[in-house]
Amino acid sequence: MITRTQRERAITHCWELCQKTGVALRDDEIHQIEAADFGLSEFETTGLTILTLKITPSVGIKLIALYPWQACPEHLHPPQGDYPGKEETFRGLWGQAWLYVPGEPTPAPHARLPEHRAQYYTSWREIDLAPGAMHTSAPNEWHWFQGGPEGAVILSISTRPTDYQDRFRDPAVQRKTVVVEK
Amino acid sequence: MITRTQRERAITHCWELCQKTGVALRDDEIHQIEAADFGLSEFETTGLTILTLKITPSVGIKLIALYPWQACPEHLHPPQGDYPGKEETFRGLWGQAWLYVPGEPTPAPHARLPEHRAQYYTSWREIDLAPGAMHTSAPNEWHWFQGGPEGAVILSISTRPTDYQDRFRDPAVQRKTVVVEK
Repeated sequence: MITRTQRERAITHCWELCQKTGVALRDDEIHQIEAADFGLSEFETTGLTILTLKITPSVGIKLIALYPWQACPEHLHPPQGDYPGKEETFRGLWGQAWLYVPGEPTPAPHARLPEHRAQYYTSWREIDLAPGAMHTSAPNEWHWFQGGPEGAVILSISTRPTDYQDRFRDPAVQRKTVVVEK
Repeated sequence: MITRTQRERAITHCWELCQKTGVALRDDEIHQIEAADFGLSEFETTGLTILTLKITPSVGIKLIALYPWQACPEHLHPPQGDYPGKEETFRGLWGQAWLYVPGEPTPAPHARLPEHRAQYYTSWREIDLAPGAMHTSAPNEWHWFQGGPEGAVILSISTRPTDYQDRFRDPAVQRKTVVVEK
């Protein structure tokens, strides 16, 4: 869960960072921003804030904002029936982020994880998501990412989102974020 | 056909306009720019220049640059086997463009078409593609677009591109652009 204050701060932060990307935004799009803490109640270190620009039956277009060192926990988008699962292309737009995918582990990765969560991060091939850098994560492939020292904004362009079916390494994760008054 | 000079000028123009969008680009991405004249040899009025950021088997991510009043002729992306055809979401990034789709014709549309081509433009519901504005064109749906007085950059995010199967209203259109020395 996150508090209403945490959520409001996250939305403001996301909106400010999205402005810094240079991508033209409409004023009403601020209402399409949502904060997710993955049910861990450690939003500032494990969480993200998403401005959804468009969801169609085939495509998702989102801007993902991260606080400094905020991580999106390791997960995959599984197949469902005829659908092979969500394919997701990431492109760095502002700040610095790193994406981690299966493969040869990067010797000295930049990530900084909370110690009590580190065991649930198993993919360590580091992909640079500096502004302009891109990577496509295949359907059903584990991945996670983290913002660098100033945070980051990442463009995510994917096939049909299936967020509530995502599988997470960390068994404590719940996709739904509860917002409490405070 | 277009001349090598026209092509080089178009690539430079596209690159300059893409920089103006604010979207972070890598220097090497200039090599992913292509100019298309649709075989009409009237590139400055009927054509476009595309910076392809990514093509996967499922998704296409492109920046489309238009000269002032340059139009992409009316076309659709037809079904092929199990594939319903390309769905395409347009988002204005810089300048002004208008998209035209089937439906109630807009009374005083902004478009300015070359007279000898106007008969091949039949969809007249005008959609504003100012920066931040979006529209999704369904698979197999006619559409065309044109840049305004300063030209424009449009982000196109689509399902799998099938450019060479596109159907055009204008029977003179050929999708392949021939570049000649001059």
